[in-house]
Amino acid sequence: MENFYALIMAGGGGTRLWPLSRKDRPKQMLPLVGERTLFQMALDRLQPLLPPERILVVTGRDQVAQLQADAPQLPAENFIVEPFGQNTAPAVGLAAAHVQQRNPEAVLAVLTADHYIANEEKFRRVLQVSVQVARDDYIVTLGISPTYPATGYGYIKRGEPLTELDGFHIYHAEGFTEKPNRETAAQFLLSGLYSWNSGMFIFQVRQLMEEYARQQPAMRTLLTRIQAAVGQEAYADVLSQLWPQMPRLSIDYAVMEGAQRMAVIPVEMGWSDVGSWASLFDVLEGDEDGNVTQGENPKHIHLDTRDTLIVSDRVVATIGLRDLVIVDTEDVLFVCPRERSQDVRQIVERLRKSGDETYL
Amino acid sequence: MENFYALIMAGGGGTRLWPLSRKDRPKQMLPLVGERTLFQMALDRLQPLLPPERILVVTGRDQVAQLQADAPQLPAENFIVEPFGQNTAPAVGLAAAHVQQRNPEAVLAVLTADHYIANEEKFRRVLQVSVQVARDDYIVTLGISPTYPATGYGYIKRGEPLTELDGFHIYHAEGFTEKPNRETAAQFLLSGLYSWNSGMFIFQVRQLMEEYARQQPAMRTLLTRIQAAVGQEAYADVLSQLWPQMPRLSIDYAVMEGAQRMAVIPVEMGWSDVGSWASLFDVLEGDEDGNVTQGENPKHIHLDTRDTLIVSDRVVATIGLRDLVIVDTEDVLFVCPRERSQDVRQIVERLRKSGDETYL
Repeated sequence: MENFYALIMAGGGGTRLWPLSRKDRPKQMLPLVGERTLFQMALDRLQPLLPPERILVVTGRDQVAQLQADAPQLPAENFIVEPFGQNTAPAVGLAAAHVQQRNPEAVLAVLTADHYIANEEKFRRVLQVSVQVARDDYIVTLGISPTYPATGYGYIKRGEPLTELDGFHIYHAEGFTEKPNRETAAQFLLSGLYSWNSGMFIFQVRQLMEEYARQQPAMRTLLTRIQAAVGQEAYADVLSQLWPQMPRLSIDYAVMEGAQRMAVIPVEMGWSDVGSWASLFDVLEGDEDGNVTQGENPKHIHLDTRDTLIVSDRVVATIGLRDLVIVDTEDVLFVCPRERSQDVRQIVERLRKSGDETYL
Repeated sequence: MENFYALIMAGGGGTRLWPLSRKDRPKQMLPLVGERTLFQMALDRLQPLLPPERILVVTGRDQVAQLQADAPQLPAENFIVEPFGQNTAPAVGLAAAHVQQRNPEAVLAVLTADHYIANEEKFRRVLQVSVQVARDDYIVTLGISPTYPATGYGYIKRGEPLTELDGFHIYHAEGFTEKPNRETAAQFLLSGLYSWNSGMFIFQVRQLMEEYARQQPAMRTLLTRIQAAVGQEAYADVLSQLWPQMPRLSIDYAVMEGAQRMAVIPVEMGWSDVGSWASLFDVLEGDEDGNVTQGENPKHIHLDTRDTLIVSDRVVATIGLRDLVIVDTEDVLFVCPRERSQDVRQIVERLRKSGDETYL
């Protein structure tokens, strides 16, 4: 595993965990599960597999200081800073350019900073298997076995079996589908051939760069010029000059969907994108009444309350509640039924339209 | 109305509006309806009727400083301080002793500090009528026309009509009943003969003292000795020596139930004892979705939320709630269905038993 590198994508924002997540405190910076932030947990689970020197983070200017403070073990030069957010194809390309400059033989795993994985040991095993497959010139995607007809994820269809390693079945990846409608999602689920796209990819950097060259030649040209400046005095100038010219494309659309040798490894490892208060509830362990309490020293005194998520740093007393979400932050209190927690986006949207940025 | 005095009973505690009301911040000190506290509102509605010099307050040592700060218009000597809480018969007796010392011809209205009255003009009219009836040697009680078979109030049965004044029907009072069970309460409601005991009484002080002498001679003896010391240097010593000997009886039980000439005036004036979060909700005006917001600069951003009470000083965002109570204080958050808001006492009881007084 000596040429193996990991890249944590930590540029995200997102409003689905409002009011805890904010513009300047996105989801990955929150200690949602236990006391470590999701970003720290993403690093922690890699620790047995590779040294900090081979873990890179790509993020934005506003977030890099906090992320560095959260991960003092990483070398400063491993934080790749985007001048401004440009979707995932430029972000991965930029980080890949850095990695290739350091090690032309590198195998890189693109990983997420704000997802939860319950079975970390299995995660590390599937990563090791992925590296082996990537060395055979495959771009490997980790597919999450779907549990319901989700319309919020992309799907990967598996084709012919490729091989089996360490108990994992590896398949040719036959195609990517962006977020489907509910009918299509239900068909996908029934067919048994589709996995959710976890956003985790493993590949040889050399091979990825070839795909950029073949499918996104303009982007590849820009990346080559940036790569030549890595470690040079001119780097910052070159980057800020060329970055705005990058097309705002996702890595799925720009590269993965059209890549020539794609593999998918379906894996069940207790993955969650923690994309709503309801999904945080699912991830956390409840008490005997099914209530979940998360926060610094929260105390839940309750009478007949069940299956309720409470995020608070203080005393919360409840009577007779069912399936509710209560999120109690310093300046905003949010209460809603668990099954409607996705609708928090509408509240955020309304705040945004009102022009009041205080609570965003 | 020149011999007319009012006494505000402001010694109460109570846990039914926890977590807003606390040991050191009882209900009457809270600005529950608008920006004035219930105690201040009790004074405000008397203002057109009599000068501050003739309004007295009976309260405990712990509360007198705050009440004085809330009512700077009252003379300091009008705050009658109980050495410690001893139920209402000693409290009323003590205040009556003071009033009689000042004016042997006084008519005194015993009023509550922590109730809400929507129709203040009618309240003042019924008080004026009560004073007239009291001058005919009646102890007058204000009866609230019941709207449901409440088990939490005492009831007064009316007897023969006595007279009619300014549109109010005055009756002989035939008897007092302590808090009945639900069946009895339902019968009372159906009969049309019963009023809730509001705890408001109007009487000539001389006549009340005669009833003490007749029914509670031991208490009358103690009160006479205290009365003799009013305005003397020895007052504090006399009071602290005799007060512990007072029997802990309610004024209803000790005097009213056995009084010889009792009258009751049933009145509808939008009275509420604000005895639960649900009853506060009933008293306050809702927005177009029936939601009630109370607090300092609260802001309720909501989506499909209806008939919900929010007590908070900050931003509260809600989605899809119905008939809920949300009380957001500095150190405790309380959430429960409106119809269960009485059960907050069980939470308080549990806290008390746990030995942790922090949140009481």
